[in-house]
Amino acid sequence: MSKVRVNCFALSLDGFGAGPHQSAEHPLGQGGTALHEWFYPTRTFWNMFGMEGGATGPDDDLAARGTENVGAWILGRNMFGPIRGPWPDEAWKGWWGDNPPYHTDVFVLTHHARNPVRMQGGTVFHFVTEGIRAALERAKAAAKGADVRIGGGVATIRQYLQAGLVDEMHLVVSPVLLGAGEALLAGIDLPALGFRQVDYTPTPKAAHYFLARKK
Amino acid sequence: MSKVRVNCFALSLDGFGAGPHQSAEHPLGQGGTALHEWFYPTRTFWNMFGMEGGATGPDDDLAARGTENVGAWILGRNMFGPIRGPWPDEAWKGWWGDNPPYHTDVFVLTHHARNPVRMQGGTVFHFVTEGIRAALERAKAAAKGADVRIGGGVATIRQYLQAGLVDEMHLVVSPVLLGAGEALLAGIDLPALGFRQVDYTPTPKAAHYFLARKK
Repeated sequence: MSKVRVNCFALSLDGFGAGPHQSAEHPLGQGGTALHEWFYPTRTFWNMFGMEGGATGPDDDLAARGTENVGAWILGRNMFGPIRGPWPDEAWKGWWGDNPPYHTDVFVLTHHARNPVRMQGGTVFHFVTEGIRAALERAKAAAKGADVRIGGGVATIRQYLQAGLVDEMHLVVSPVLLGAGEALLAGIDLPALGFRQVDYTPTPKAAHYFLARKK
Repeated sequence: MSKVRVNCFALSLDGFGAGPHQSAEHPLGQGGTALHEWFYPTRTFWNMFGMEGGATGPDDDLAARGTENVGAWILGRNMFGPIRGPWPDEAWKGWWGDNPPYHTDVFVLTHHARNPVRMQGGTVFHFVTEGIRAALERAKAAAKGADVRIGGGVATIRQYLQAGLVDEMHLVVSPVLLGAGEALLAGIDLPALGFRQVDYTPTPKAAHYFLARKK
């Protein structure tokens, strides 16, 4: 059965999934890169970007679970890029260069229509203006029975959570304080949405929590 | 130099330091006892209550740091008991029986004056109606150069944090979802208050974070 998953989503100790003042210079908000220090050294991260090497170990094992059986991705507009409002032209193709780390169809939520963009390595960015449910339907069709991964950012995951559409979450608490930014869980009652804690794996870099929704 | 500390203060993954609907039956709010499952088995916890035994190991080592060099405690009224409003009589003497785990002077914040209560084992409960700064002054005097520990609950710690009066915090994220309750850090910008992350020690039971304020 195809699942809708969030994986490897890092939070600060104070609950922020991105720092404040996101910009082209700070795609993760100010201080936001520190959230992912557990992830950058991993072999999984390196491989996503076509590089050999990277560290193995528990963080890599957990990162690798995030890439297994993913048939399509959904991203919010702000995770795709810093441009707000109508697309000025077709030039922006994401933060990730010519060969993005998705290698599947990727459905980008936006209020502004745009033609699909075919990248190297199998990633195709589709721009969905009909809302989160339409994006999920298209992602499920594209995934052909595999899972759909909601990549982020915070606002996008919150929308899918509040609509009851997320089945599993792997959250990572990094030993970092941000003080401000985008709070993932503020005002969201996960047990009321059916989530329970199913696994906890601490590593020297971060604490990994797996949550699943009862069916 | 005497410090003002918070130690062993457990949060759920979703940021709550106590569950909702605190009552005589649920002193930690509904579901709140699960926050402390890392702590109950420790030798430190057992010893605080005068029992021999308990588990050693990393959780106990960190719990023990919370008891070192503590010369006085401060508690909020709700941590002292379930009674709200004026004291109906002198009968309520805390949740902890005749020999509470403090063994120092303990300053209880309240709007309702009451005579001090002398317990077994050296604990004396003092009731302070003049606010958090007065309670801290009295606690520092009683501590005679040792540290003052703010025991909680959430509202009390938040008041001391926001007043810039806390020097160190040891927070513990337990692998538990509460969904609702008292959020310790909501709306509090710890870096803006001068706090930085200084140590992170994960254990199989919980993730321990030590924060300190720059002087």
